[in-house]
Amino acid sequence: MSDIIVIGIAGGTGSGKTTLTQAIVQNLGSHVTVIPHDSYYKAHHELTYDERINLNYDHPNSYDTEMFVEHLTRLRRGETVECPIYDYTIYDRSENTLTIHPSKVIIVEGIMIFYPEELRKLMDIKVFVDADADVRILRRITRDVKERGRSLDSVINQYITTVKPMHEAFVEPSKRFADIIIPEGGLNMVALEMLIGRIRAHINS
Amino acid sequence: MSDIIVIGIAGGTGSGKTTLTQAIVQNLGSHVTVIPHDSYYKAHHELTYDERINLNYDHPNSYDTEMFVEHLTRLRRGETVECPIYDYTIYDRSENTLTIHPSKVIIVEGIMIFYPEELRKLMDIKVFVDADADVRILRRITRDVKERGRSLDSVINQYITTVKPMHEAFVEPSKRFADIIIPEGGLNMVALEMLIGRIRAHINS
Repeated sequence: MSDIIVIGIAGGTGSGKTTLTQAIVQNLGSHVTVIPHDSYYKAHHELTYDERINLNYDHPNSYDTEMFVEHLTRLRRGETVECPIYDYTIYDRSENTLTIHPSKVIIVEGIMIFYPEELRKLMDIKVFVDADADVRILRRITRDVKERGRSLDSVINQYITTVKPMHEAFVEPSKRFADIIIPEGGLNMVALEMLIGRIRAHINS
Repeated sequence: MSDIIVIGIAGGTGSGKTTLTQAIVQNLGSHVTVIPHDSYYKAHHELTYDERINLNYDHPNSYDTEMFVEHLTRLRRGETVECPIYDYTIYDRSENTLTIHPSKVIIVEGIMIFYPEELRKLMDIKVFVDADADVRILRRITRDVKERGRSLDSVINQYITTVKPMHEAFVEPSKRFADIIIPEGGLNMVALEMLIGRIRAHINS
């Protein structure tokens, strides 16, 4: 068993992958390093704000896979990386970075992480968190409208025009690369206990 | 944690659930008791052979759920049960039984085990083994034609007339009761290792 394992946690919007990731972190704390895929949205300093705002952020090409693969490879080797910080207010990568130190368990989280083969190859355990599409959109509405103050119309419009078609084209098909599929992510205590047991066994090895 | 846990392993025909179960038994041996649901096909001494041969054995009603629930409840309590033996040559329950002793881990295996609610309630961990329908039918053909000497026509006919519709009506919908879904059952080493780790933790507790 290698000293560092990489666990990928994928799933559609509202599937519960963040809840699952947080539950793992709460249980195992400092032994775990989390890298969100969303930090690796491509930098687009060459575009205007209006051009950037109209990009499709639900397509795999919106991620800087080359940099993400390089950083994950270095973390696996036990090296520290400077993780980019994405600035959602300007729809661009900020000038600042976050120093990420490796630990025995690295969790990669994101909707699109099982899509690029070179990324999948870096993962020891691939977990797909699953939930019905209606439950997922209701969670997204709750989050974006109630917590982030967006209008219901804009959430529905984005969901129908990009989130749903991109989910069906890229996220749902990538489920077949999963080693295990967990219905209802962080609320599923039986699966959570099993996953935490597996991670703890690695930490104690 | 109770002293005895019950693990349900469900999945369609050819999904790999038997391979998964065998892999667990190979790893954990005497700590594990397996009860196949198929042993609990209903007795039909009141019917003729020709009547019995025409029953739909892929429907949940073909199982003696009352007896299965009673036996599983008793095994959970640490009691020994006399498991019926189904005689496939006469399509009926035989007069003989198999004495099953409880152990710390009881595995219940079958395509329909997540369908009856009273059965699901007796399980601590519900695992659904999943595979594409085309892969599953190819495995069934290989098993029934090559290993059991049945004709290809009869396998295809049974699959189209009962196995597939019953799968879609009862087996596939019961997937939503699973705690974890394992693609490709016994061949999936990452999931197998996780499940065995969870069971071993219980055995050593």
